[in-house]
Parts: sequence; structure tokens; C-alpha cells
Amino acid sequence: MSRAPLYAVIPAGGAGTRLWPLSRRARPKFLLDLDGSGRSLLQRTWDRLSDVTGPDRIIVVTGATHAAAVREQLPDLGPENLLAEPSPRDSMPAIGWAAAHIVRRDPAAVIASFAADHIIDDDDAFAEAVDAARTAAENGSICTIGIDPTGPSTGFGYIEQGEPLGLDTPIPVHAVERFVEKPDRTTAEGYLATGRFAWNAGMFVGKAAVLLEQLRLDHPLLTEGLETIAADPRRLDEVWPTLTAIAIDHAVAEPASVRGVIATVRARFGWDDIGDFEALAHLGSGGPSTEVVTIDAPGAFTTSTTGRSITIIGVPDAVVVDTGDAVLVTTLDQAQRVKDAVAAWRDRGRDDLT
Amino acid sequence: MSRAPLYAVIPAGGAGTRLWPLSRRARPKFLLDLDGSGRSLLQRTWDRLSDVTGPDRIIVVTGATHAAAVREQLPDLGPENLLAEPSPRDSMPAIGWAAAHIVRRDPAAVIASFAADHIIDDDDAFAEAVDAARTAAENGSICTIGIDPTGPSTGFGYIEQGEPLGLDTPIPVHAVERFVEKPDRTTAEGYLATGRFAWNAGMFVGKAAVLLEQLRLDHPLLTEGLETIAADPRRLDEVWPTLTAIAIDHAVAEPASVRGVIATVRARFGWDDIGDFEALAHLGSGGPSTEVVTIDAPGAFTTSTTGRSITIIGVPDAVVVDTGDAVLVTTLDQAQRVKDAVAAWRDRGRDDLT
Repeated sequence: MSRAPLYAVIPAGGAGTRLWPLSRRARPKFLLDLDGSGRSLLQRTWDRLSDVTGPDRIIVVTGATHAAAVREQLPDLGPENLLAEPSPRDSMPAIGWAAAHIVRRDPAAVIASFAADHIIDDDDAFAEAVDAARTAAENGSICTIGIDPTGPSTGFGYIEQGEPLGLDTPIPVHAVERFVEKPDRTTAEGYLATGRFAWNAGMFVGKAAVLLEQLRLDHPLLTEGLETIAADPRRLDEVWPTLTAIAIDHAVAEPASVRGVIATVRARFGWDDIGDFEALAHLGSGGPSTEVVTIDAPGAFTTSTTGRSITIIGVPDAVVVDTGDAVLVTTLDQAQRVKDAVAAWRDRGRDDLT
Repeated sequence: MSRAPLYAVIPAGGAGTRLWPLSRRARPKFLLDLDGSGRSLLQRTWDRLSDVTGPDRIIVVTGATHAAAVREQLPDLGPENLLAEPSPRDSMPAIGWAAAHIVRRDPAAVIASFAADHIIDDDDAFAEAVDAARTAAENGSICTIGIDPTGPSTGFGYIEQGEPLGLDTPIPVHAVERFVEKPDRTTAEGYLATGRFAWNAGMFVGKAAVLLEQLRLDHPLLTEGLETIAADPRRLDEVWPTLTAIAIDHAVAEPASVRGVIATVRARFGWDDIGDFEALAHLGSGGPSTEVVTIDAPGAFTTSTTGRSITIIGVPDAVVVDTGDAVLVTTLDQAQRVKDAVAAWRDRGRDDLT
């Protein structure tokens, strides 16, 4: 049986405020080389997906303010494959626009959507999971790729799997019982004990037509708006601001799971959304590096875009981020609060720093 | 009665390693503006002493490597009043050289020696204390100016006063019972309870001839070497390396106090030797400043020579020092250990940072 054509969608949005001052509004997380690979997270995502779909079937959806930087980082991205949002409207309009755009090009297309700023450590395992999800998509499901948890994380949402769908895939495809938001520690431990829960990495694979059909059930105006824009891009600036800002999880994944349309495969690759400096520290590379002296500061994490020397004395688990115009000092267990500091600078009128 | 001519001596030495990376070997503490006054500590010392002796009777003794910077900061310092040490030999050779130099110019001279890198907050009270010490010096004593303690500091040595000398001065002059090294807390509290102990700020006022005579008793070779250099400056490079490196406290103050030659006056001005960042933080100004956001970081101390923004989250009493090539992160109670970091950088061959 010949397979439905597969397109990749990369929603490249979100500033990654909790990685400030490495990340800025003008230089969001996905444009940064955070793992010391020499390639940005966006470029690594592109590399991974090129192997799966080929470079001509990757659509990047990003904010208009980042379109130039995206073009520069991805010279092989065709102009017809770059969708520039006039303003951020969350993930559903971004992915939905790509779906509406692709379905006009190829009505049978399966689309696979992956955030631009996540790290995946095993491209083969990734391709295998995508392949299984693609089979589920060809059978009419919207299939999420769940991540086999390595611990009871309270930083991610979870997917509870239901019965197997009985598809002939190397990795089993299950129905989705439900999606759950970030749990507390005890709840997360309970999830892991059942063996039925995976981390929700926001990876969706489905026919573009099915995605739009499911979206239309609860959000007909949003769907219509996206189709209008796809049919006539000149109406983008007029229609885009009218679209509901909503995440794909709430707009499609949760309601469609109730309707039995959502499936899931469990992937075993290492994955991280690098949500904060603690996550970045755990990566073990830590982006731009410099020479460091630590005295009684075990677990300290440092990164510098300037190459200046960093000295830490007596602050265990310190986080020190050195950039051209901002120095951040905190500790790993306070790393989530970096976003509050960004807000504080903005309140002071120092938008130039954010 | 006409008074003996008064000369000021400023030994300008010591890197101030515990204020690294603000202070460097090439830019020691005394060359820095640490109190935000717009004048370096050396310049402030000069200003204070100019009012007492006039600018023509101030002798600065500094390392040869800093002579150019000293000349630049003190344009009114006459070339004959700048003594450049070929290498550091501690405070006695520095002050003794100045004494031997001055006594040739003016055999009856009284010299008053004050470190180049201390802060004094009341020039009138300072002048009053110097005047009383000068009277004691004219009577043949070497008179130290002790600082009325504001608390049981363990960071300074102490001077125990003995009986009053009965001189006609606005501040009483006492004999010195003994000098004591930095005490522990309990001992310091005991000192304060007696009312007889003052902080030893290393301020000595005495006839140049008396100082040399007292030095000669225990260190005849050192005294002879200093007089040789004063008589024939061309022999500086030959003789200087043979001189014993010793502090004036050990070479003269302690033995002469046993001989009853040392007197003391107690001064009531605010004084600090700014020994580390904790002391600098207590000054309340903190040198070069920049814009700072702190979240849950009470007591944090920051200083920046670059104007970069500094953000501190969840590190109470943090010390963050930002300079062009080095960022230091520590806490107030670890501030004494900064010197260990300087040693660590030197061990790594990064002398450029020290």
C-alpha cells in the first residue's frame, strides 16, 4: 500500500523566558545553540525532520519578527514553506494554519508537528516513533508521541494510554484515555507505577484534513479563518487578529480524545524541552562556555556568551549566566523564577534587556 | 613654641586581593574609587593630608610598577616626593625609607604615616587627632592614632592604652600598654568592656629621627640600608633587595612600646580599611554601580565596572562583581575567600586576570 505523503510542521514560537538572559524576545530559545552542537535547536529539529520528510516538506510557522532569523538559519527552507504569523496566537492557529496550507497542496497529506525548541537524543528511535504514528494517522487517528518517563517529573503533562488499536506497527499504538496537566509529585509517582502514562511532548501526527475536521467541531470560526488565510494569503493581516488564541491540546487533543480520535505511541528516546536552567544544567553541556573557578560551589552551572571568566565561591548549585548586557545569578532550585525577573525588567521599562 | 615641621608619608602598597576582580595587581585598591566619591582612595588620602601638611610635604612610597599611575592620579606630587620601591618589602622598609629621606631634608621633621587605601569620614576629627599625636611626637614619642571601636570587630588588631602622658592636648595622649593581633569575638568583647582598647589602624606619628633610632635598636642593618639609599638614590637597586621585609608593627611599634616610647591617641572618626566586599557593602555605596533587579536576595551587594545589568534571584547576601574580563559571585560571609580564587586563577596560568 502506498503511504500518504508526510509533512513536518515546526511551530517556532515562544521566547523561552526562563532561559533569560540567554534567550530574548529577539533571540528566542529555538534560535540558540543550547547543547553545544554548533546548531541551534531549530536547526537540529530541521536536521532530524529532513531525514524523515525531506527538506521540501517541512513547514515552519514563526512570528513575523523572527522570519528573517529563521530564513538565515535554514537556508534550504523554501519561501512557500515559511509561514509568518503577524502576532502570537498560541499553538493551534500556528499548526492549524500549516494544516490548512498543506491540505490545499496535498489533500491526503499527513502532518507531523514538533516544537522547534526541544532536544531529542536518538534520531533513529524518533523516526521509528514517527513511522508508527504515521500509520495510525493513515488510519484516521491523530496520534501523539508520548515520551517514556525517566522519572516522576512534575514539569510535564502526561498522556494516559488506553487499549491497543491493533495496528501492525513495530511500536504499539494505543488509544488515549486522557491528557492530564502537570501533576504533583505523589500523583506523578502513581502515574509511573501504572505503566500507562507517558510525558506529553506536544508531538502530533495526523492527516491535515482530520485535524481541521476535528478542530471545526469545537472551533468552526477559527477553522474557517485558517482556511481563508490559506486560500488567500493576502487576507492574513485582516483575519489573523480575529483568531482565537488557544493551545492545540485544548482545541483538539482533549476534545478529540473524548471522541476516540486520538491515539498514542510511546517513544523511548531521550527528550527534553529545556524549560529552565536546571534542565539545561542536566544536559551537561550548557551552551556557550567559558573558564570557571569554583570554590565550595558544587553543582554550579555557568554559561557565558562573552567569554569572560566566572568565579563562584560558596554558592552551591549556583547558576551564573553572563551575556553582553545582563548578568544573572540564581540557583538551580530557583531557576523557574527567572521569568519573574524578566517581568521586573519590563516593568522598569528596560524592554531592551528582555 | 614653634612646632616641628610635619611631613605626611603615604605607603601605597598592597593589591587588596580580597577586592578582586575590582582590584588587580596592576590596579590595586588604593587606585580605585571605592566610595563613589569620584576620587580614588589614594586621592582622598592626599586631599585629607594636604589640609594638614600642605602638598609639598607629602611623600608617597609605592611600587615601581605603580609609580606612573600614582603620578597621574596626584599631579601635584613633586617628583622628589615619590619614592618607588623596586619590589615589595612590607611596610617598615617603605616608611623607613621615607623617614631616612625626610630626615636628610629636615632633621627635626615629624612624620605621620597613613595607608593609602583606608577610608576616614571626618577630616576635622582626623586633623585634631593628628595634631595631638604631633604634640606627643614633639615630646619624643612615636604616637599611634587608635580608632574608637564601634563594635567587637575580629578583623582588626587592637591597641591597649596605659596611663595618660599628661600632655596639654585637646585629646588625651596615653602610653601604650601593648599591641594585640586580631582577637576572637569573646576576646574582642572583653576588650571593649574595659574601655581601654582601640582599633589599630596602622597610623604612626613620630620624629623621623626617633623612628630610625628605635628601628636601629633591633634592625641595624635595615636602618643602615635605608640611610644608604636616602644618601645615594643610585644605590637603590643594589641595596633594596637586601632589606628585611617586615611590618612596622613588628619592627618598631611592638618593641618600642616595651621601651615606653609608643604613645596613643584615640580618634573618634569613622574609619575602615575596606578589607573585603563585606566591608565595602557596609560602606553603603559600593563603587561603580549599575541597574540591579533582586528577587528574594536581601542584603545583596553588586558592583559593575561595565554597566551591565545584574539580576539576582534567591541568593541572600549575594556578592556579584562584574568587570570587563571577570565575573565574581559569592556571599558576604564568604567574602574573605576571594583571595583563594585569585590564587586559583594564578595557578591556572591566568595571571592576566589577577
